[in-house]
Amino acid sequence: MTRGTFISFEGGEGAGKSTQIRRLAERLKADGADVVLTREPGGSPGAEQIRDLILNGDVDRWSPVTETLLMYAARRDHIERVIRPALDRGAIVLCDRFADSTRAYQGAGGEAPISLIKALEEQVLGGTTPDLTLIFDIPAEVGLKRALARGGEARFEAKGLAFHQRLGEAFLEIARREPQRCVVIEADDAIDAVWADVWDAVSTRLGL
Amino acid sequence: MTRGTFISFEGGEGAGKSTQIRRLAERLKADGADVVLTREPGGSPGAEQIRDLILNGDVDRWSPVTETLLMYAARRDHIERVIRPALDRGAIVLCDRFADSTRAYQGAGGEAPISLIKALEEQVLGGTTPDLTLIFDIPAEVGLKRALARGGEARFEAKGLAFHQRLGEAFLEIARREPQRCVVIEADDAIDAVWADVWDAVSTRLGL
Repeated sequence: MTRGTFISFEGGEGAGKSTQIRRLAERLKADGADVVLTREPGGSPGAEQIRDLILNGDVDRWSPVTETLLMYAARRDHIERVIRPALDRGAIVLCDRFADSTRAYQGAGGEAPISLIKALEEQVLGGTTPDLTLIFDIPAEVGLKRALARGGEARFEAKGLAFHQRLGEAFLEIARREPQRCVVIEADDAIDAVWADVWDAVSTRLGL
Repeated sequence: MTRGTFISFEGGEGAGKSTQIRRLAERLKADGADVVLTREPGGSPGAEQIRDLILNGDVDRWSPVTETLLMYAARRDHIERVIRPALDRGAIVLCDRFADSTRAYQGAGGEAPISLIKALEEQVLGGTTPDLTLIFDIPAEVGLKRALARGGEARFEAKGLAFHQRLGEAFLEIARREPQRCVVIEADDAIDAVWADVWDAVSTRLGL
């Protein structure tokens, strides 16, 4: 069975993921690849509507468990309607955030039980997991300052520095546990230097 | 620990649940009880917004798995914000549909895996399960005709007779498996006769 390549981009706020993912998409397209650039929560029309429910409103609008379930509802729709069809036709899917963000944000950051998150990974992902995950690591205070400066998703960004420090640690823990899937990108550096690391990781993985 | 009583009402479309549940609420209130009348999907402000996402749009807007996850997101919010606080203060909670509806609609009716539904029951309900469930049984063709006549939630009602027959069987199977919790109400009868059966089941369970 031929299939495409699924690459996810993870990390805390203000780590520069979006800039790098766009640059990677351009580069791969210039090489003639079929590239699908997408993001979570969202990425399909239904999932984008769930995203609006999750991200708008008060910080404590949803409990961590409810938020986790909404994230997985959006993820399932995104997988079924966008990611899986693209992989089936052999595309390279670049996804800004995926399941690791639920582990970090709702698990380590927000206190949803890990047993719930594991059950959802098993029951809902249906084997659609990234071939490569780039984890953008940045000191929480640097990332948060950048994110606040650009004005972003206020709900998560309002949760404070300690929350974002736990986030960063949670992402690094995922990278330590799954070194064959994850590459840590030191993101507190000039854009071109970060890009060199991104391209090195991706081109190695894709055999370019 | 004192706590209230949680009674859920289940069954297919057009079985007359809403009429009976309102009558029961009136009767219990007349006796001086603290009664909370609520429904699913919905029942809390957040859950009602998720309800809108679930029930509007095309029949196949969401896959069975996505729909199940949205149902449980709404259910968790409803439990946390309405059902649990009411039970904790000793109220009688009357809920028009609860977890059994997910088993029947998304499980038996819509082909979401039972392993997913069981995992969600374990991980998400947090032990908040009904003390008594009244399962309204009615021939699918009678219930569907009634539901279409009154104009209801078009998305589920458009799914056809075979779907609604599977639904009815699924509810009866739940009643057979949990006879200590479930009472089957023969709902294809005059309103007063059905009410007599409802009151009999509830007053026996509440020791009235």
